[in-house]
Amino acid sequence: MDIKQLADGVVSGNRRALARAITLVESARADHRAQAILLMEEVGKSGRQALRLGLSGTPGVGKSTFIESFGMMMIREGKKVAVLAVDPSSARSGGSILGDKTRMEELSREPNAFIRPSPSQTELGGVARRTREAVALCEAAGYDLILIETVGVGQSETVVSEMSDLFLLLLAPGGGDELQGVKRGIMEMADIILVNKADGDLKPAANRTCADYAGALRLLRKRPQDPEGFPKAMTVSALQVDGLKEAWGEIQNLTEWRRETGHFDQRRAEQAEYWFGQEIRQGLLAQLQKEPLKSMISDLAKQVAAGQLTPGHAAADVLNALQHG
Amino acid sequence: MDIKQLADGVVSGNRRALARAITLVESARADHRAQAILLMEEVGKSGRQALRLGLSGTPGVGKSTFIESFGMMMIREGKKVAVLAVDPSSARSGGSILGDKTRMEELSREPNAFIRPSPSQTELGGVARRTREAVALCEAAGYDLILIETVGVGQSETVVSEMSDLFLLLLAPGGGDELQGVKRGIMEMADIILVNKADGDLKPAANRTCADYAGALRLLRKRPQDPEGFPKAMTVSALQVDGLKEAWGEIQNLTEWRRETGHFDQRRAEQAEYWFGQEIRQGLLAQLQKEPLKSMISDLAKQVAAGQLTPGHAAADVLNALQHG
Repeated sequence: MDIKQLADGVVSGNRRALARAITLVESARADHRAQAILLMEEVGKSGRQALRLGLSGTPGVGKSTFIESFGMMMIREGKKVAVLAVDPSSARSGGSILGDKTRMEELSREPNAFIRPSPSQTELGGVARRTREAVALCEAAGYDLILIETVGVGQSETVVSEMSDLFLLLLAPGGGDELQGVKRGIMEMADIILVNKADGDLKPAANRTCADYAGALRLLRKRPQDPEGFPKAMTVSALQVDGLKEAWGEIQNLTEWRRETGHFDQRRAEQAEYWFGQEIRQGLLAQLQKEPLKSMISDLAKQVAAGQLTPGHAAADVLNALQHG
Repeated sequence: MDIKQLADGVVSGNRRALARAITLVESARADHRAQAILLMEEVGKSGRQALRLGLSGTPGVGKSTFIESFGMMMIREGKKVAVLAVDPSSARSGGSILGDKTRMEELSREPNAFIRPSPSQTELGGVARRTREAVALCEAAGYDLILIETVGVGQSETVVSEMSDLFLLLLAPGGGDELQGVKRGIMEMADIILVNKADGDLKPAANRTCADYAGALRLLRKRPQDPEGFPKAMTVSALQVDGLKEAWGEIQNLTEWRRETGHFDQRRAEQAEYWFGQEIRQGLLAQLQKEPLKSMISDLAKQVAAGQLTPGHAAADVLNALQHG
């Protein structure tokens, strides 16, 4: 594969080249990985920067409808929109949250929109790296806005937050219990909370929920990366395309403030360092899955379980083999 | 240091030898680590087994009073009791949860009791390994009962659960909100929930709380390692030494059942395998903290943060250096 040519294709905005490039970074093969590293270096030279929006919400909250409506609004403003997903469960459940493009029917037909389901990997670390590199590829391909979607499972919000400039949390209208339902850690990641389905019968409930969250957000400690009034809670109706302009306005306000104060660039630098650390850790642990170490560990584990060898001794044997093998 | 002699001292029940042995396994020095591995092999030959009781509870719940009362009851039954702690915050906060022996005044004066504060380490992985080896040393030294205490912070409950035969959760009397306050994961680890302070004015509240938790426990999925009626919620008063005999009775019932059904040994085998895996992971990550790798990583991190190098490329450089350096 000619990596230079593939990189040129990506940077020139060729959709097929972008899709092929993402397939390459998703591959687990060692030779593909080496090529992927070169590819990422090449496309990095474009120097292009998109706005990366993380988006989380539990199933049923209306994420697909939101992406469809919000994405189409951006397209009409003349922007190029990419949609990616972090969904470590997709390989197990057999269906990615983005696998069914019919859920974003209009957007998926737009030439200026690019939708890519989550890579099929059960291991979050693998999904994380591949999605992060797909984000950088879309950025180099000239997309202005990159939406990175995830469902509220385990660590996937952290992963999305570490590759996003802004993090949006989508919620459904609901009672005070909702406050308990969302994990504290996730709420602390959110820059803007959007209470969806603020239409018809649910509108009063959505307003109440929004007020509850606005109150809860005021209790959180002020973060240096937030101007006055942020994090913020707002109501939207993705279905009726209501409140999306206001949401976009606030996204722009926050982005501009962070750019002017240096927080935007600082966060990107911190994120790059974070992923550097993660890549090293994953690379180290991946060595344990390879032969001859894999068999050695399996044999030692049996002796440890049988009490014939202490965990410390067995681990020292593995680490020695790793260093001198 | 003569490791064979030290091991003999530990196994013969010499308290000073035990204390020195724990100091050795707590050391981070490479030569000490090599000696510690030999020591653990040596003492492992004793084949002695204690009952390892994990104990968790948030500050103020009366953990020290419980350990004092419960420990003294065991001493009077002719048992030797060791008390250890997993407290990764102790180095930061400047005071271990077990540092102040005056909180267990009677027990700390008993010749058949051995109390050791948490090792001073900010890193939970390090605390975990050292405590796990201290548990095995106390076991070889002939202690019948080993209490491993922790506070409800982050991952420390998992660590204690992975080195305990039974896991006790100590709670204070409180309203329905308490049910929310205890993390779901911790409740699922508990074999017996003890609602403390069931005395005086608080007795009715303790009974209510106990009933609430008993109800909540019934909602959890049945685990194979539990006989009928477990996990169980009970009230105790550590201060008035009330309900402790009943608690000990249930601890014995559960232990006997697990021994007869093979779950006791199976769990120990699984735990040994778990710690083997943890030791390998920690050993790998520890290599990153050593020179020349440490400086290399620090230099590369600056380039990554500045956008001069992709995280993937920089990580590949580190992994190469690790393998061929």
